[in-house]
Amino acid sequence: MGMVGGGQGAFIGAIHRLAAGITGEIALVAGAFSRDGDASRAFGAELGLSPERSYASYTEMFGAELALPEDIRMQCVSIVTPNDSHADIACSAMKAGFDVICDKPLAGVLEDALRIEEAVKETGRLFALTQTYTGYPMAIEARERIAAGELGEIRRVAVSYLQDWLSREDDTKGSKQASWRSDPARSGESGAFADIGTHAYNMVEFMTGERVTDVAAELRAVLPGRAIDDDGMAMFRLDGGAAGLISASQVCSGAINALRIEIYGSKASLHWFQEEPNTLSLKRRGEPEMVLRSGAGTPYLSDAALAVCRTPGGHPEGYIEAFANLYAAFAGDVRDGGKRPGTPPGYATIEDGMSAMRFIRAANISSKNNSAWTPLAGIENQS
Amino acid sequence: MGMVGGGQGAFIGAIHRLAAGITGEIALVAGAFSRDGDASRAFGAELGLSPERSYASYTEMFGAELALPEDIRMQCVSIVTPNDSHADIACSAMKAGFDVICDKPLAGVLEDALRIEEAVKETGRLFALTQTYTGYPMAIEARERIAAGELGEIRRVAVSYLQDWLSREDDTKGSKQASWRSDPARSGESGAFADIGTHAYNMVEFMTGERVTDVAAELRAVLPGRAIDDDGMAMFRLDGGAAGLISASQVCSGAINALRIEIYGSKASLHWFQEEPNTLSLKRRGEPEMVLRSGAGTPYLSDAALAVCRTPGGHPEGYIEAFANLYAAFAGDVRDGGKRPGTPPGYATIEDGMSAMRFIRAANISSKNNSAWTPLAGIENQS
Amino acid sequence: MGMVGGGQGAFIGAIHRLAAGITGEIALVAGAFSRDGDASRAFGAELGLSPERSYASYTEMFGAELALPEDIRMQCVSIVTPNDSHADIACSAMKAGFDVICDKPLAGVLEDALRIEEAVKETGRLFALTQTYTGYPMAIEARERIAAGELGEIRRVAVSYLQDWLSREDDTKGSKQASWRSDPARSGESGAFADIGTHAYNMVEFMTGERVTDVAAELRAVLPGRAIDDDGMAMFRLDGGAAGLISASQVCSGAINALRIEIYGSKASLHWFQEEPNTLSLKRRGEPEMVLRSGAGTPYLSDAALAVCRTPGGHPEGYIEAFANLYAAFAGDVRDGGKRPGTPPGYATIEDGMSAMRFIRAANISSKNNSAWTPLAGIENQS
Amino acid sequence: MGMVGGGQGAFIGAIHRLAAGITGEIALVAGAFSRDGDASRAFGAELGLSPERSYASYTEMFGAELALPEDIRMQCVSIVTPNDSHADIACSAMKAGFDVICDKPLAGVLEDALRIEEAVKETGRLFALTQTYTGYPMAIEARERIAAGELGEIRRVAVSYLQDWLSREDDTKGSKQASWRSDPARSGESGAFADIGTHAYNMVEFMTGERVTDVAAELRAVLPGRAIDDDGMAMFRLDGGAAGLISASQVCSGAINALRIEIYGSKASLHWFQEEPNTLSLKRRGEPEMVLRSGAGTPYLSDAALAVCRTPGGHPEGYIEAFANLYAAFAGDVRDGGKRPGTPPGYATIEDGMSAMRFIRAANISSKNNSAWTPLAGIENQS
Repeated sequence: MGMVGGGQGAFIGAIHRLAAGITGEIALVAGAFSRDGDASRAFGAELGLSPERSYASYTEMFGAELALPEDIRMQCVSIVTPNDSHADIACSAMKAGFDVICDKPLAGVLEDALRIEEAVKETGRLFALTQTYTGYPMAIEARERIAAGELGEIRRVAVSYLQDWLSREDDTKGSKQASWRSDPARSGESGAFADIGTHAYNMVEFMTGERVTDVAAELRAVLPGRAIDDDGMAMFRLDGGAAGLISASQVCSGAINALRIEIYGSKASLHWFQEEPNTLSLKRRGEPEMVLRSGAGTPYLSDAALAVCRTPGGHPEGYIEAFANLYAAFAGDVRDGGKRPGTPPGYATIEDGMSAMRFIRAANISSKNNSAWTPLAGIENQS
Repeated sequence: MGMVGGGQGAFIGAIHRLAAGITGEIALVAGAFSRDGDASRAFGAELGLSPERSYASYTEMFGAELALPEDIRMQCVSIVTPNDSHADIACSAMKAGFDVICDKPLAGVLEDALRIEEAVKETGRLFALTQTYTGYPMAIEARERIAAGELGEIRRVAVSYLQDWLSREDDTKGSKQASWRSDPARSGESGAFADIGTHAYNMVEFMTGERVTDVAAELRAVLPGRAIDDDGMAMFRLDGGAAGLISASQVCSGAINALRIEIYGSKASLHWFQEEPNTLSLKRRGEPEMVLRSGAGTPYLSDAALAVCRTPGGHPEGYIEAFANLYAAFAGDVRDGGKRPGTPPGYATIEDGMSAMRFIRAANISSKNNSAWTPLAGIENQS
Repeated sequence: MGMVGGGQGAFIGAIHRLAAGITGEIALVAGAFSRDGDASRAFGAELGLSPERSYASYTEMFGAELALPEDIRMQCVSIVTPNDSHADIACSAMKAGFDVICDKPLAGVLEDALRIEEAVKETGRLFALTQTYTGYPMAIEARERIAAGELGEIRRVAVSYLQDWLSREDDTKGSKQASWRSDPARSGESGAFADIGTHAYNMVEFMTGERVTDVAAELRAVLPGRAIDDDGMAMFRLDGGAAGLISASQVCSGAINALRIEIYGSKASLHWFQEEPNTLSLKRRGEPEMVLRSGAGTPYLSDAALAVCRTPGGHPEGYIEAFANLYAAFAGDVRDGGKRPGTPPGYATIEDGMSAMRFIRAANISSKNNSAWTPLAGIENQS
Repeated sequence: MGMVGGGQGAFIGAIHRLAAGITGEIALVAGAFSRDGDASRAFGAELGLSPERSYASYTEMFGAELALPEDIRMQCVSIVTPNDSHADIACSAMKAGFDVICDKPLAGVLEDALRIEEAVKETGRLFALTQTYTGYPMAIEARERIAAGELGEIRRVAVSYLQDWLSREDDTKGSKQASWRSDPARSGESGAFADIGTHAYNMVEFMTGERVTDVAAELRAVLPGRAIDDDGMAMFRLDGGAAGLISASQVCSGAINALRIEIYGSKASLHWFQEEPNTLSLKRRGEPEMVLRSGAGTPYLSDAALAVCRTPGGHPEGYIEAFANLYAAFAGDVRDGGKRPGTPPGYATIEDGMSAMRFIRAANISSKNNSAWTPLAGIENQS
């Protein structure tokens, strides 16, 4: 694997490398970690890469790697750069023949996302998006139980992803991350809604197996001087007839990384909270609440959930393992030369990413339009 | 106290009597428990009332009681009948000179509520609405801490009140309660939103000390054959600038009586769940979560919360005690001949009730109007 | 009912009266609230008693009440005095023909307890001990499920009752309660172990339906200057072969009223915590944890638990209701003229109280004897 | 690093390798995975080892590796064999000049442990024991806060480690693990108490910074036909004057991997549960409970806890990361040529291991001696 971005001090790049490493199936062999060739090489050296495989740009990397013998050159690319650069890099990588795994969200703006979608179709390469939280065993368990009909018909969904790291005015002045995420030119059309709302959104579609059709949203820049939303909420409809509420905010004091989802169906409901990811609560009317726990060997878990448990029951797993589960699925598909048909992939697909991008665009349009209900279909043609 | 409604088998009437009894300040001396005089007398006898003070109608009761010497006759009336009859009874009681405590919501339709409001203004009688959940010590603690500025400026509110007792089609055929609550002719303009959404709504205004100004809602009758909403959701705005989400549903499988509220401010957030009412969670950025517990003598609780704790820390109190706190506050005000100025009352006022009724009306109108943002002010003049 | 003790400012007396009142079946008609006749009368007046039925002593009360016509005089006596006086009052009451309900523990010293036991046998009067915590619906649910064999054979029990209100040296100097509880002359042979350890102990026997046979204990006075244990721990054996651990302490900083019990059997385990009394957790190997909730109408609860639920699911009940459940059971038995045979009583019996007293004595002896295993049987004959 | 044991299907060996890998500082270069040379080579090949560095025995491995150039040969040995073989392997490894990291407990019998202790002293090699649970950030946070005096003087400790994987008679017939763990000839003098009781014990000493001085224990083989304890409990004393209770059992139905510890001091108490390892609860009298959460960058955490956090707050870490923290500490010390003086090591030391071994022996002796209090000091000289 080669990596684009993720140089010195970049949080998410480090997590990607650690996650890939845990799989035992992926070796980092090349990188364009920085636009500064020296910085890239220095950082590559720290990671144990040979100097000639640390590059000053992704174009250089793709070219040089293609020139290497097939059994040596990288097979796939991990993209961990800011959102606005995903499209150029991903398209270029796929056109050069590399499978791609890309940090979320798909792109800064919907138009870029459409370019990626087109490239995926054209090239037939694998494209994986790391919506990390779907890698947790209990998120997968929720999906499996819903798919098996245990909740009956889905009626109501509540999802929220709240943080507080941008809750003060000067928070957007400090770190590298905070600054590009709150800069519309680099982050794209939305701030908090794109950054973490897409995680919440993706979790809804992941667990329910349904697609969102319409949204009525209000996005807000709560803190003075913010050019882009740092807080938002929306009502939405799913194609199976359910209604839902979503909120995403980075200015909610006391919320650390609070992604919480509740899905109510005609027969039962499921409740999951990312900060305690090893439990999943299942409630049925007139019955005791059931608290399911992750863990290899747990008799009541689905095969799909068990397949991503690394430790036995009572030995908790966390965020890094969830991330590694996405990489493991991607590695498997790279090795197999494509996604196994008929099974849900272990990572977010281009379709998932496009749905989220359309949602962001539709939410933005709705928000500017007195929160009118706005369909996602064809939103790219609307202004 | 005299009671209107609450005859044999009526759940909420029994709770009202138990709550009033616990206060040690209220004696039930009269009742019009049923429209059937014999049934009313039989039930009154069960409660230990003298037969001549069990009446066949509230008009009979008001007349007969007024004819009794002042030190014997009832001083106040508790109304626990279906929503559609609140206005007639309450207006009649206040005009006869009795203070009134009335089960929520204020009325079936906004027009009736306006009549009650007018009667309160005309007669100057006390009017208390039993939005039970504001009687919990920790709900009061939340209000006090917010009033004291501990959360800073309120930014985001999430409240939901979910139940499942109407989650099956035949649930509206069975009990007395279920049937009138889902019958628009008797319950009023809304089903779940009026029945429990008003509790959720009232809790928002109670805790924040702010009023809702606008709503964008979608109400739904999820189960086939329901004439009135059994599920709904809305976005709302508070007059201090915050945004909020509310959901109320009686078709959410696995939700028993799940009233949950989270309030996020610029400095901290508060989290409370009715099913575990003795704790209140306070979270500040970069600090450990603080879990506050109710209990007499707890040094960190506000005077207002301590005033309603009956037992020391670690000795949990519940729903009946919360209810009793409303009655105790009402009894105190009846005794004092009016509400003490300058302090928040211990029960919902006519203003609180009117706000909720306007919210229901506005939500209904918004829902029929593609969920357009709808102001509450002047909603009675809109169709 | 007449009450002995429980005058102005006495916490537990007030709770007893409130609990009795909630039952709707018990009226307080007489009292010897204080040894000072004026104080007793003044306090009786506050409670609404007629002045001639507030007495200066229990002997005066028993005599005077016996002289009243049967339909007016009190039928039963509630004893809420310090431990050292329970025996004299209870024996005297039963010999005068009154049924007795008495605050726990049975007595200050085992010898006094034996006198009560003898009086119960002689007079055949009802004798109820208010081990409050067994009045909670979910404690009863635990007992019922164990009795029905759901846990299989009991293997291991862990129970602890920890508080912190005596955790500082000067805590025994302040309040009336604190001082007599830490004064061996008045409290009896043990401090924390008798005061709250008996609650923990009683809960073990109540839930398991088994009796403790042997104990190996270490009691300690942790704070300097304490004449009696403020902290203790023990291993014990149950007659069904299980082993258990018990701890009781009033010097554990941060513990408010932390009574927690876990019972492990060959098939399942049960977990209950008094500060969140409306849930009971049931765990089976290889199955999801089940969280049971109290509430009238809950389909999965036992009849015995349902019989003491006053509110529907999701409407929490608390300590006062638990206490009231004991009084309601007692009132029922008083009315019936004796305990219904074949069913577990709704309160602790003389046998339960004696078992706890023997446990305290045996624990004390064990503690002085290098924590040697000490049988409870015949402990009254051992020094 | 070279590994002894941990061949095909061995759970703990796989965890050791994964943990070592995550550190980014340790490469597995050699192994004696099985006594069968072919099996060892086959398994080594699976792990990517060169065939000549997979050995048929540890003696062969130590010899062959010593013959390799210093910059190629393994520097340290990881021992993941059954308990009865730890001493021979560890002594041999240290005498050959290798630093050792060894799975817990130290040895099967105290005599073997003493041999290891002697070898450590003689050779001066590093010796690390993987008492995994002390690698969790919040376990370290607890230690740091206690060391800083935040709890005041420790008064009472309660620790339990309960599992249910041996709760049925035929559980000791199935797996490789279950069989050697319940076979006294291979597991040593104790079953559950040695296997998991030592974890609980070690956590007490780790968090409090004190040593256990005396124990009064009862070990039991609950299931028919078990030759060795599968359940046990004990009272203990700490050298600072505190009292404690410990239980360890593998027959407690519904307990998965339930290691729970509570430490009460004169000022505050700490509460930690391994299955939700990212939170630590701190309770002070008269103050709200504080729930601390792990996470890089958390302002209120100690430097020592922050040093082992890999992800920011709200991104949970788990068992594998805790394990990796031990390996990282070991790797650091190997690189530095010895433990940094003056700081607590990041793993259990030979002293910690010896204390646990003496505890097991003393508990065994106490258990056979009517649970008499038994001092740990000099227990090796007692029979």
